[in-house]
Amino acid sequence: MIRYNNDYNHGMHPEILKVLTEDNNNAYGGYCKDEWCEEAETTIKNVVGDKNANVHFLVAGTQTNFIVLSAMLRHPFNSVISVDSGHIVVHESGAVENTGHKVETVPGVDGKLSASQVDEFMRNCNNSPTYEHITHPKAVYISYPTEFGTIYSLAELEALREVCDKYDLYLYVDGARLGYGLAASNCDLTIKDIHRLSDAFYIGGTKCGNFIGEAVVIKSTEVNEDFRNYMKMNGALLAKGWLIGLQYSVQFRDGLYFDITEAAVRKADRIQEAFEEAGFTPFIKGTTNQLFYALPKTAMDSLSREFIFEFDHWVDDNHGLVRFCTSWATTDEETEALIKAVKSL
Amino acid sequence: MIRYNNDYNHGMHPEILKVLTEDNNNAYGGYCKDEWCEEAETTIKNVVGDKNANVHFLVAGTQTNFIVLSAMLRHPFNSVISVDSGHIVVHESGAVENTGHKVETVPGVDGKLSASQVDEFMRNCNNSPTYEHITHPKAVYISYPTEFGTIYSLAELEALREVCDKYDLYLYVDGARLGYGLAASNCDLTIKDIHRLSDAFYIGGTKCGNFIGEAVVIKSTEVNEDFRNYMKMNGALLAKGWLIGLQYSVQFRDGLYFDITEAAVRKADRIQEAFEEAGFTPFIKGTTNQLFYALPKTAMDSLSREFIFEFDHWVDDNHGLVRFCTSWATTDEETEALIKAVKSL
Amino acid sequence: MIRYNNDYNHGMHPEILKVLTEDNNNAYGGYCKDEWCEEAETTIKNVVGDKNANVHFLVAGTQTNFIVLSAMLRHPFNSVISVDSGHIVVHESGAVENTGHKVETVPGVDGKLSASQVDEFMRNCNNSPTYEHITHPKAVYISYPTEFGTIYSLAELEALREVCDKYDLYLYVDGARLGYGLAASNCDLTIKDIHRLSDAFYIGGTKCGNFIGEAVVIKSTEVNEDFRNYMKMNGALLAKGWLIGLQYSVQFRDGLYFDITEAAVRKADRIQEAFEEAGFTPFIKGTTNQLFYALPKTAMDSLSREFIFEFDHWVDDNHGLVRFCTSWATTDEETEALIKAVKSL
Amino acid sequence: MIRYNNDYNHGMHPEILKVLTEDNNNAYGGYCKDEWCEEAETTIKNVVGDKNANVHFLVAGTQTNFIVLSAMLRHPFNSVISVDSGHIVVHESGAVENTGHKVETVPGVDGKLSASQVDEFMRNCNNSPTYEHITHPKAVYISYPTEFGTIYSLAELEALREVCDKYDLYLYVDGARLGYGLAASNCDLTIKDIHRLSDAFYIGGTKCGNFIGEAVVIKSTEVNEDFRNYMKMNGALLAKGWLIGLQYSVQFRDGLYFDITEAAVRKADRIQEAFEEAGFTPFIKGTTNQLFYALPKTAMDSLSREFIFEFDHWVDDNHGLVRFCTSWATTDEETEALIKAVKSL
Repeated sequence: MIRYNNDYNHGMHPEILKVLTEDNNNAYGGYCKDEWCEEAETTIKNVVGDKNANVHFLVAGTQTNFIVLSAMLRHPFNSVISVDSGHIVVHESGAVENTGHKVETVPGVDGKLSASQVDEFMRNCNNSPTYEHITHPKAVYISYPTEFGTIYSLAELEALREVCDKYDLYLYVDGARLGYGLAASNCDLTIKDIHRLSDAFYIGGTKCGNFIGEAVVIKSTEVNEDFRNYMKMNGALLAKGWLIGLQYSVQFRDGLYFDITEAAVRKADRIQEAFEEAGFTPFIKGTTNQLFYALPKTAMDSLSREFIFEFDHWVDDNHGLVRFCTSWATTDEETEALIKAVKSL
Repeated sequence: MIRYNNDYNHGMHPEILKVLTEDNNNAYGGYCKDEWCEEAETTIKNVVGDKNANVHFLVAGTQTNFIVLSAMLRHPFNSVISVDSGHIVVHESGAVENTGHKVETVPGVDGKLSASQVDEFMRNCNNSPTYEHITHPKAVYISYPTEFGTIYSLAELEALREVCDKYDLYLYVDGARLGYGLAASNCDLTIKDIHRLSDAFYIGGTKCGNFIGEAVVIKSTEVNEDFRNYMKMNGALLAKGWLIGLQYSVQFRDGLYFDITEAAVRKADRIQEAFEEAGFTPFIKGTTNQLFYALPKTAMDSLSREFIFEFDHWVDDNHGLVRFCTSWATTDEETEALIKAVKSL
Repeated sequence: MIRYNNDYNHGMHPEILKVLTEDNNNAYGGYCKDEWCEEAETTIKNVVGDKNANVHFLVAGTQTNFIVLSAMLRHPFNSVISVDSGHIVVHESGAVENTGHKVETVPGVDGKLSASQVDEFMRNCNNSPTYEHITHPKAVYISYPTEFGTIYSLAELEALREVCDKYDLYLYVDGARLGYGLAASNCDLTIKDIHRLSDAFYIGGTKCGNFIGEAVVIKSTEVNEDFRNYMKMNGALLAKGWLIGLQYSVQFRDGLYFDITEAAVRKADRIQEAFEEAGFTPFIKGTTNQLFYALPKTAMDSLSREFIFEFDHWVDDNHGLVRFCTSWATTDEETEALIKAVKSL
Repeated sequence: MIRYNNDYNHGMHPEILKVLTEDNNNAYGGYCKDEWCEEAETTIKNVVGDKNANVHFLVAGTQTNFIVLSAMLRHPFNSVISVDSGHIVVHESGAVENTGHKVETVPGVDGKLSASQVDEFMRNCNNSPTYEHITHPKAVYISYPTEFGTIYSLAELEALREVCDKYDLYLYVDGARLGYGLAASNCDLTIKDIHRLSDAFYIGGTKCGNFIGEAVVIKSTEVNEDFRNYMKMNGALLAKGWLIGLQYSVQFRDGLYFDITEAAVRKADRIQEAFEEAGFTPFIKGTTNQLFYALPKTAMDSLSREFIFEFDHWVDDNHGLVRFCTSWATTDEETEALIKAVKSL
């Protein structure tokens, strides 16, 4: 069986394993105070084009989201604005609320939040006659790419930045699949833009070739203050932090991170073409490594003989919404196999 | 100026003040362990028809809501289901989230939640392939009457009870304006039904003749366990608790609570008739002490010369949504004055 | 039976009841936006000698403590330093921890915290090699008077202020019994000093003549920012807030607050003299309205025929530690009765 | 430089790296639903001698502590009892309090908590006249071995179990260094005893040969209920959970875990002998892989030329308390080097 169900079903990129193996006899200082984290930090600062950027290495995505937001939302009545399909809304078990903060939601379009939605929400807040009876947003949460594999254009991101500045809101970008988003055929921005336009974002590792780890890049001095304490008290300051630093060092030395995620997206593009040729329209027109189709039962049955893919829900009596994910670990052979199977549906 | 802006702008019913005055030289035990709380508890048990009911006296509404829900939601990932217009969603500054729990919202119809909405929400939860990644509702929040002055029928409440039993959910009824709801012309249930069909509800005092205080009635033994500790740690166990017990004793000795709230609703009925005669259709067809109209600017200006009422928002360039509240303190003269003014609009 | 068990067993001072009665037909704006709160705020600003002071009216003591501290401790890893006998440590059911913050304790001497203890604690924090692994104090909690009825001298309070400035800590004074403290025979400071030397304190009402209510006085602009939101989300922003404002207006118009608490302390002084004459040494040499004695069982039995007093614990097989409290409501007759009984022990 | 500063300065045991490398091309299901976690779970159940044990794989120690305690402390006013030197008290940045719960402390003797201390604490709680004003312990926290490298005897552990049963308390054992404790020369119990006598404990991985990961073993059905949700909402349910399962599978297949921690303790024993021969008395007489000495400055300077060790604090003008840790990665050569250096002090 070939796994297309998600992008975190394989261990780590061979290049990372190689360095890990070579390094295993060395000893390091604890809690991300070590040579590997230092190297990774320096490299990432170069990659995002900002010597003053702050870089922290956390273990996993949900953890990263609630910790960054918790650091942004200083008052307990501060909330964060998200689309209703946001990962923090539907897939994190109420982790943000567990820190005491409300997530205020607005309806998403293809998983995306627009600047005008934020503007309208904040206008209503500020016009509220009952200032003390409502929550006060202090951050905006988006993911790049979104849950549906769609991406924001540069113009859309700039508009979000502008509205955040207008209302004194932090902009946080969940980059669990950042590499796949930047490799999309319709992507018109770079990781430097993401950094320039956000107050904090993270460069997803778990889904992009690491065995564990997410690298948070914080521009805001205020959010960065004592961020390591937020990490520690939430169990995210890893004793052997260098193991995450090592992976990011390898990933960003020569652009491995960008290469392997781009390759995965090209494979997804080809699979999408195959579906199109076979007469299937995407459920949502994503351009990254996630493909969503509402397939007839017969097609689902047929494909499930050879492939594992994710079933979301039944859209009608005969059609199920399914997701196919490519990843840095997807091989050419696996891609050809799926293309062939799709074409013969 | 005559105040119709809310139902908590006057101190206390004269009968309460009389007893308070007579009693002021007496001394009592602290923290609701006193003769007045005992009398009020006994009386309320009779009123709800259940000797095993548990009665607690808290200070205010938001406090009551988050404490009862916090006692119901034992696991941090437990959530509560509410309509999107619920008081806990829009008017309590994120107080429930501040206790660490998510409020899961569904769209309300005239402020009401239906059993089928709860059923659908729970079915989706239970069918979710990602059990650990979602919140797990453990309670349903409704208010009686709702934020819009509408009420649930007996059949609707029974259906909610049934769906709560089906999915092992607590049903909590916010009764900040309970008296006004029970006095509605279309009300087909009693306070005994509210108690029978809920796991906990409260008999609103602040808005119904008390100077402070809300009486929580808990049927569920599990929710009641150590409830006083929940009160204490949240600052709701009043040192001079007998002052709340005294008010409820006076209110329920001879039905004062029901009499004064019914009188207020009859006044609202008459004001609603006047609006109808004057050609105004209610924005929402409530039947309690709250009336919502989208009035033209000229009417708003005219009425605001003599009356204070609540402005909510502009529904279009020329119409503002406003609320008129009668209360236990509204006099016949004040009612006639408003009726006269409305008719001459 | 005459109650000496605490200072919150009577309703309210007659003068307050008189004004409350006269005022009961009037209507007011909600949530402490009314004429009474305005008057009380102005008066209290005069009393503390600072036009820029911020005054808020809350309902009860535990509530006040955790809300003020929660507003002071902006980061979740910020803690508050207290003596181990502090009210927030032993009598509030973990209310501060419930807001997510640790209370760091040091041993108290007669219930008091010294500047040198704070200094040592902070030095250890700052010298810690594991900055992220410890909590970081941001506030110091003391009560005036303490749980044991002792008071800080002006010099001691100034030293605490100094050490707080040195380490950038807020100083918060719990004044549940403030009036009784200021009336102590050995008191060498004024309410103006309390305000000048603290960042926030509260003027206790519940124990000093009010039926409910505590007045928080905040000097720190930072702590005061959005303090009303902290109140609302924690259920402390009373709908009928003017009822608290009214009480403080009456209390501070002509010094009633100071008069009635002073009278109570003079009565306690006389009772203490009687105990001394009868050969009893105080367990702790307090000088306010609380008297602590380790009495033999026979004396306890004898006194309990006529008086209710608080039993704390057995100090040995034959002696129980008990507390006698006078209050604003203690009459001359009650005082004479206790004196007589003590002398005949 | 040779690192003796802690037991988490090396990556992973070579045998783990070998299996990790062989396995790196395989794909697995996410979130600990995979073949490796299944194998590790089965193996650990055998090791602890209980087919009904529940095993979960978390990432790190602080995370494990606050999550297990949070699952044990169902009411917000429930607290946990610990010695004042407990890791959760002094080294976790207030992580337990951040979940809303108080840690009630009693003085430790050599880092250990005695059954009689728990008994006394609970007796005082239960005798308290103010039930609602105190916290109610629901769990006891100990670590095995303690922060000072001391261990509990079987009798001591049985006594703790008994007192926990008496007062309906959960017993939780922090086993960050479990292997090193079980290998102590004076250890008279087994991992089966730890499981039998506790409600939950964890088999520390990070400090005992893993690159990441801790294995929680839960006996209590109540605590285990929905434990995965606690993990998820706190960011501890690793997407690539099999990487932890794999390590524990390797560690417990043939007793690797016990072998490598025992070897480390034998090395510590020999180093301790060397210190003794050189005339140094241990600061605390630990018997595991941690050695504490108050060394004169000259000795500290001398040793620091070749070795990295942990400085804790100055015990007097001339003596610093330092810690030497051996670990599974400490080689014979490194041991000999330190022994030689100590002997020549």
